[in-house]
Amino acid sequence: MSVQKLKVGMAGLGRVGKIHANNFLHQTPRAELVAAFTPDPKEIAWGRQHLEPYGVTLYDDYEKMLEHPGLQAVVIGTATSVHAEETMKAIDRDLHVLCEKPLSTNVEVCKAVVQKAKTKPHLKVMCGFSRRFDDSYRDVYNKINQGLIGRPSIVRSQTCDKLDPSGFYVAYAAWSGGVFVDMSVHDIDLTLWFFGDDALPKSISAHGITAVQPELKKYNDYDNAVGIVEFHNGKIAYYYCSRMMPHGQEDTTEVIGTEGKLSVNINPQHNFVNFYHPGGITREVPGNFIGRFGAAFVREANEFTASCLDNTPLPIKLTNAVKAVEIGSYLQEALVTGKQIHFDEVGRRAERASL
Amino acid sequence: MSVQKLKVGMAGLGRVGKIHANNFLHQTPRAELVAAFTPDPKEIAWGRQHLEPYGVTLYDDYEKMLEHPGLQAVVIGTATSVHAEETMKAIDRDLHVLCEKPLSTNVEVCKAVVQKAKTKPHLKVMCGFSRRFDDSYRDVYNKINQGLIGRPSIVRSQTCDKLDPSGFYVAYAAWSGGVFVDMSVHDIDLTLWFFGDDALPKSISAHGITAVQPELKKYNDYDNAVGIVEFHNGKIAYYYCSRMMPHGQEDTTEVIGTEGKLSVNINPQHNFVNFYHPGGITREVPGNFIGRFGAAFVREANEFTASCLDNTPLPIKLTNAVKAVEIGSYLQEALVTGKQIHFDEVGRRAERASL
Amino acid sequence: MSVQKLKVGMAGLGRVGKIHANNFLHQTPRAELVAAFTPDPKEIAWGRQHLEPYGVTLYDDYEKMLEHPGLQAVVIGTATSVHAEETMKAIDRDLHVLCEKPLSTNVEVCKAVVQKAKTKPHLKVMCGFSRRFDDSYRDVYNKINQGLIGRPSIVRSQTCDKLDPSGFYVAYAAWSGGVFVDMSVHDIDLTLWFFGDDALPKSISAHGITAVQPELKKYNDYDNAVGIVEFHNGKIAYYYCSRMMPHGQEDTTEVIGTEGKLSVNINPQHNFVNFYHPGGITREVPGNFIGRFGAAFVREANEFTASCLDNTPLPIKLTNAVKAVEIGSYLQEALVTGKQIHFDEVGRRAERASL
Amino acid sequence: MSVQKLKVGMAGLGRVGKIHANNFLHQTPRAELVAAFTPDPKEIAWGRQHLEPYGVTLYDDYEKMLEHPGLQAVVIGTATSVHAEETMKAIDRDLHVLCEKPLSTNVEVCKAVVQKAKTKPHLKVMCGFSRRFDDSYRDVYNKINQGLIGRPSIVRSQTCDKLDPSGFYVAYAAWSGGVFVDMSVHDIDLTLWFFGDDALPKSISAHGITAVQPELKKYNDYDNAVGIVEFHNGKIAYYYCSRMMPHGQEDTTEVIGTEGKLSVNINPQHNFVNFYHPGGITREVPGNFIGRFGAAFVREANEFTASCLDNTPLPIKLTNAVKAVEIGSYLQEALVTGKQIHFDEVGRRAERASL
Repeated sequence: MSVQKLKVGMAGLGRVGKIHANNFLHQTPRAELVAAFTPDPKEIAWGRQHLEPYGVTLYDDYEKMLEHPGLQAVVIGTATSVHAEETMKAIDRDLHVLCEKPLSTNVEVCKAVVQKAKTKPHLKVMCGFSRRFDDSYRDVYNKINQGLIGRPSIVRSQTCDKLDPSGFYVAYAAWSGGVFVDMSVHDIDLTLWFFGDDALPKSISAHGITAVQPELKKYNDYDNAVGIVEFHNGKIAYYYCSRMMPHGQEDTTEVIGTEGKLSVNINPQHNFVNFYHPGGITREVPGNFIGRFGAAFVREANEFTASCLDNTPLPIKLTNAVKAVEIGSYLQEALVTGKQIHFDEVGRRAERASL
Repeated sequence: MSVQKLKVGMAGLGRVGKIHANNFLHQTPRAELVAAFTPDPKEIAWGRQHLEPYGVTLYDDYEKMLEHPGLQAVVIGTATSVHAEETMKAIDRDLHVLCEKPLSTNVEVCKAVVQKAKTKPHLKVMCGFSRRFDDSYRDVYNKINQGLIGRPSIVRSQTCDKLDPSGFYVAYAAWSGGVFVDMSVHDIDLTLWFFGDDALPKSISAHGITAVQPELKKYNDYDNAVGIVEFHNGKIAYYYCSRMMPHGQEDTTEVIGTEGKLSVNINPQHNFVNFYHPGGITREVPGNFIGRFGAAFVREANEFTASCLDNTPLPIKLTNAVKAVEIGSYLQEALVTGKQIHFDEVGRRAERASL
Repeated sequence: MSVQKLKVGMAGLGRVGKIHANNFLHQTPRAELVAAFTPDPKEIAWGRQHLEPYGVTLYDDYEKMLEHPGLQAVVIGTATSVHAEETMKAIDRDLHVLCEKPLSTNVEVCKAVVQKAKTKPHLKVMCGFSRRFDDSYRDVYNKINQGLIGRPSIVRSQTCDKLDPSGFYVAYAAWSGGVFVDMSVHDIDLTLWFFGDDALPKSISAHGITAVQPELKKYNDYDNAVGIVEFHNGKIAYYYCSRMMPHGQEDTTEVIGTEGKLSVNINPQHNFVNFYHPGGITREVPGNFIGRFGAAFVREANEFTASCLDNTPLPIKLTNAVKAVEIGSYLQEALVTGKQIHFDEVGRRAERASL
Repeated sequence: MSVQKLKVGMAGLGRVGKIHANNFLHQTPRAELVAAFTPDPKEIAWGRQHLEPYGVTLYDDYEKMLEHPGLQAVVIGTATSVHAEETMKAIDRDLHVLCEKPLSTNVEVCKAVVQKAKTKPHLKVMCGFSRRFDDSYRDVYNKINQGLIGRPSIVRSQTCDKLDPSGFYVAYAAWSGGVFVDMSVHDIDLTLWFFGDDALPKSISAHGITAVQPELKKYNDYDNAVGIVEFHNGKIAYYYCSRMMPHGQEDTTEVIGTEGKLSVNINPQHNFVNFYHPGGITREVPGNFIGRFGAAFVREANEFTASCLDNTPLPIKLTNAVKAVEIGSYLQEALVTGKQIHFDEVGRRAERASL
């Protein structure tokens, strides 16, 4: 009896796409990467070197890849702007989908994908929030469920990138949806995980600055922003996102309950080395999210695969992905307009005038 | 030649008053505690045991203490509600004053004290923000001034007390001025220190919950609150205050600049001990602010004394104390009303309607 | 063009064997696990479930596995007592070998394997010291080579296992070679890596106790031991090994140079979570070496494979493995006899009488 | 009723003497520094500036200081070579004595002091091992006594100074008694505290190098040394002392028991600040023992004073000081001769021949 493997096609071979491709190819025993698509000739060249020798067929046309014989699932790691369309095309072809976050920076588009997915309940359609697969965040979730901190009441969470002096992210801001949608969406997703899916925002405030990249202003974006989401169930989450960390990636989360607190990554570290020198004691920090979450991506690939093959529930509901983008969009709106946003107890937005 | 000592009178022998009394008595070589006042018979009894044997005269009347022969300075550690009045009376009598924070929870009253102090410029009148005397915060201030982090742009600062299950702080909320004035005023003061006195708020938002003490609501107060202050000079400070820490006092600050970051107390610890046991590795945390800032109070006493004796500038300007309370009051207002507050570039409050 | 994969057979499917089997099967892109041998029916059953479905042929006879068609390399993870014999048989059959440490607990036997390997210089024969493949130890090695700590002069290194209350290791002591050979051999290997292969012992001292397992005495072994190796080149290494850690695996190393110091794993941690509770702040620790060194085993598999396929030098010289066992044996002798051992400058053992 | 204060005279105003003088003058409420002696004109000048203004009489003759009217106690912080003589003279004059460690580097001289002290049991004679007064070490001692780690079995302890490039300690080695007597005596004292005074050495080994100061060899001393003391009661202590730490003072101790472990100062730090920069995260370390143990010296002064005034037992037995020096001397002998030393169960030294 030999192992049945999930035949997977990879869409996009950029930074995240390469990671997914390698993970499904080499680190996911029950999956078989059979195809990969990218419109980018440089990425095709990379695929020729790293994927083709292992039997992966390369495509420069997404729809043709979907026709690859026996294909069962698609992993989407292309530009955010085509996530939704590619996801829906894959659903049309009866393929399971793992789509990189976000489905879209537009909430309505996200909702349309969810509607589409509902029409084919036998398919597994997941939006990949990598932190849900991280060992530390899993541990926090389990400890909360064991009651170790009482009732979780406050979440502090930040997504902070190492400063990229090339300013690449300025151009990127044109279509990223803004820092809260692009970066904090991870922190919002964690909040919903820890507070419960039923958490409804009550009011939202946000403030930002452009400390190192004033050009961001033309895209109505910021390089540092802070936001608060107050929920109707007596909980608060507050977020910080920044693109100017000097030392590396620093994604930190605290969950404060009525009887205890849990933190993740209060002391970021690249490895277990300390260097002692006349200036003190120094440790290094991962330079990017891969250094911190590489193993989470591998686990994501394996759990998605198992869910498809065994027809078991996915570890993340697709609706979560919509809600996280929705709250991120509200934060971004509050940031850009400089106005607090309020919601009533059934989630309807309150007009300021009615306050 | 013998040392000239500053003759000091202590007003109030409650929790903080006892600390100041002991510090001026035993840890401030250039000061001499000659008198102490308290209206409370229990505190008088404590004074009989701990102060009188060292030659301190006890008074149950503040004004009588002010007449103590040769008295040069008063340290005020009574209830906040009488801070301002006692400070002004001492100024009237030509005495230097070190007053515990805040001068008052009311901004106008604070300003009145400042005005009064201006009439006697030869007197040293200081409001004691203890963290300004803490070795770690001093180090941060110096490193910022050395340019180690570029332009400071973001402050995150929290004042978090260990949960007091007695609920003492509920009654206290009746006159504390609210959590932002009572607790975060320290964080605001640090912000003004690190960002510069000229930092003017642009907009202020705040949100809070009552997670463990619902009775706080009757005083319009909260046991956990988060606030953001955006400044006109392209800087942001955000604050968290809480009265429900399970593990102890956790006052943490981060200052993020364009080229570096500094943190204080990211890893709170009571001492240098780690305990390794089947559940992991555990370290203990100070149970209150004395465990964390005890040495800062001693330094405060010594520097205040030196400033009085040598007629040198005080380490903190009295106007700072007003500004910190003012911003704290705005945060509290934003918290209670659920409305963001905006200010124009000269510091005038903007009406919502005009936005 | 498809990838050429190294055809690997696994000998032994015990604790470490299972790890190697899984690594070569699922995490080593350029290798293909084609065969596995174990004499143990329980392990065969495990293989049926976890290996056979992926096309691995199972054998209960080592020599038969060696005849598996196309086999190119053998990974030996059986009991230490058969390591040497199995390695030599594989060499006889012209197969590359990755043998778990140690080749043997007997130095002469180790040397015989090295001699055998020399007769077939085209074969890659490596003894797997996993820490050489750990990211943190690699970083230390590189930093030393960059001159960051000046001349490395002192190594402190410990191998400390979580207490196994079953006392399994008592029976194991009958043939483990003793704690210094079984456990500290890793620390000795690291020492030779950091100090240089040419480091020659000058004198060796060791002391031990049986704190939790007095029965160890019948095997002349100890559950805690400390040893010092002084080298002729003005360097010292000192070791601690223990089987009674309450909290988990704690393998810590410090390398102290004339201008700097490096440490590895001063603060053991299972993940990035801290738990804050009324007793303080607690983090968990890996329970065993897999929790600490799992990724190093994967890298070992990949680098061994690359070396075989590309005919490039192995990352560890086989002679190192002999030297580490030799020093471990001297430490064990010093421990058991209670006598210091001395060596002259060409490595000859000095008789006490001549001192 | 006024406080009765202990009238104290300070002998020696060098580095440690200044600290003691200041502590007894300004931080010991129940003591009064009335006199100070030093033969050194520079130190007299310092005393004129810092002590005389507070009413301290200065002497350049030790015996004259002993005649200071009303003197009750002497604190001895002069050169080690005169500790014993000065202590005995003070005893002769019926004065309490706090003598800096060690009483002498010569064990017989130490014993003579103990004998002398026994003749006047009403006097308090203490040798100041500052770590016994450190909050963290006290905590460890208490946790051991509460049974938190089961039976303490292994002590690892190190005294490591920041490299002093002036090489001052080379000249100092001429009369310091050697590194184990000068530095490790603290670690040995801690060991006796944690293991119990009845711990008898069984065998002792030691090895050392001169990594940065080869001139030390002419004094038979070393700049780095490692030693092991095995005790008859099934316990082991091992020590490391070094004078070449790049980063600062690093005095670390671990106590490993059958059910738990305690560590002190695994992560040395000067204050609570972390600096985040492109090279990672850095914290600073105290540059010397004052930065680490300053508060312990203050507590020592206060507890010694209380013991004298209240006629309560001293916190350290004088005999401990002898035993620590004795073990230190054996370690030093083992280090210099390159020979292990053995003892029988009643503490008699065993000849090698009899083994």
